[in-house]
Amino acid sequence: MKEFHVATIVGVGLLGGSLGLALKERGIAKTVRGVGRRQASLDVALARSVIDESFLNLKKAVKDANLIVLCTPANSVVSELDEIRSHCRPDVVVTDVASTKSLICQHARKTWPHPLRFIGSHPIAGSEKYGAEHATSSLYHGSIVIVEKKESFHASDAHDTVCDLWKAVGANVFELSPEQHDNILARTSHVPHIVAACLALLLDPECNVRPMIGNGFRDTTRVAAGRAELWRDICLTNPEAIVSSLSDFLGKVSEVLHLVKERDAVGLEKFFEQAQENRKRVLDE
Amino acid sequence: MKEFHVATIVGVGLLGGSLGLALKERGIAKTVRGVGRRQASLDVALARSVIDESFLNLKKAVKDANLIVLCTPANSVVSELDEIRSHCRPDVVVTDVASTKSLICQHARKTWPHPLRFIGSHPIAGSEKYGAEHATSSLYHGSIVIVEKKESFHASDAHDTVCDLWKAVGANVFELSPEQHDNILARTSHVPHIVAACLALLLDPECNVRPMIGNGFRDTTRVAAGRAELWRDICLTNPEAIVSSLSDFLGKVSEVLHLVKERDAVGLEKFFEQAQENRKRVLDE
Repeated sequence: MKEFHVATIVGVGLLGGSLGLALKERGIAKTVRGVGRRQASLDVALARSVIDESFLNLKKAVKDANLIVLCTPANSVVSELDEIRSHCRPDVVVTDVASTKSLICQHARKTWPHPLRFIGSHPIAGSEKYGAEHATSSLYHGSIVIVEKKESFHASDAHDTVCDLWKAVGANVFELSPEQHDNILARTSHVPHIVAACLALLLDPECNVRPMIGNGFRDTTRVAAGRAELWRDICLTNPEAIVSSLSDFLGKVSEVLHLVKERDAVGLEKFFEQAQENRKRVLDE
Repeated sequence: MKEFHVATIVGVGLLGGSLGLALKERGIAKTVRGVGRRQASLDVALARSVIDESFLNLKKAVKDANLIVLCTPANSVVSELDEIRSHCRPDVVVTDVASTKSLICQHARKTWPHPLRFIGSHPIAGSEKYGAEHATSSLYHGSIVIVEKKESFHASDAHDTVCDLWKAVGANVFELSPEQHDNILARTSHVPHIVAACLALLLDPECNVRPMIGNGFRDTTRVAAGRAELWRDICLTNPEAIVSSLSDFLGKVSEVLHLVKERDAVGLEKFFEQAQENRKRVLDE
């Protein structure tokens, strides 16, 4: 793909930092600028050569940039889009990495000039680790990045550039509308995360239950170690789909509660069998 | 510890088979007998030298045995205790490995002669894998085995023998009353399993959601791959504690549902923070 003269990454954490490393390693960007709220975090990124230049001022950082990637939580992306809109080059390509897409993409569609040069992205990458100290240039290698499906009001070259960008860092691109994305991710990611957090809260840390905890509990609640601020924003920016999936989930749990209360052996066995079978089919195992 | 002349293992799956291998490898049992319902499974165990002799008839298999370990699901253990009671040596030591303890231990207390030589056990070991083909002599090494707390009606030497047995195969022994065990395990294991199964059922395998599934979903639902029959029996033999914990869990999820509906940013951030903190404290990380 073509080389960017200046790429600006807003939010130099695990996702932003790893993108910075990958852009530099593969020669996709001549200069990578990093924007953050705290100089200390930016210094970590500079020390690890994740970025070439650091900025605390967003408007200054996007000036003359050919590519802007917003790597902050979903709620921040919306206000950053407002803040940078009149300070960008007219031919800039803008994308993000937030875990919810409808709110952000709808906001850009309403407030940015058309043909639209903002194309939303969501890399299914990362873990419960965060911060530029864990950034690695191979994070996106072999991962899936969901890119906002191209619509007639999008600038065709900007859409191509965003797809090419992710492919260039090793990802497989999958296109979905923001609404499809949010409905699916509510079930594959957002609700499982909320549920894991609720399970983690069932145990009383004052009782010494540690010896009685097997790998099952550890695996099931692992995602609850994720950053609170990020998950708060996911809930705030995808409330409808989460409420709908969480209600379905509550219905399912209530059914099982009933089966247990009734000592329904046949119903319980069928429930566990269906779950096992469904998981296998969904994961294609 | 002393050597057993004959050790009989009822149910030669992952737990029973691994115990057989460990008993033989460490010279704890001279002869290991395996009891099963299907000769084909026993043949796998024989071929892998997990057991020395195979039996389809339970009564014959326990005759002259010095140690009997029931490695079948919880519901079967109760009927097996009835079946073997009048066919055992008077000095036999009997234990089990089922994931629920109250029903089994209470049944033995009521129906077996006192001083009681049945002492319940529950090794926190194993995974979603099952069958003698996955058995390994190191399965219990470094694991925790919860042993029924010694009561005045237990035969002291039998209780010591069961504790020594698990220590001899490398486990750390932790004593709990059957009721304490079931209340704690409902929260650390049984409810997380039910919840994982419900999450697995939220996805429609007809839709191609596979690319949108990250490690979070995979981890959170991993235990749902476990054997349906086993988990049915866990629900049937620990219903009170499961109903109580599952109700607490439903209450917690309903609270979050409310926070999402209200777009309560402060409440949501606090919820995720508390869950993260609680998990950390509980796991002592």
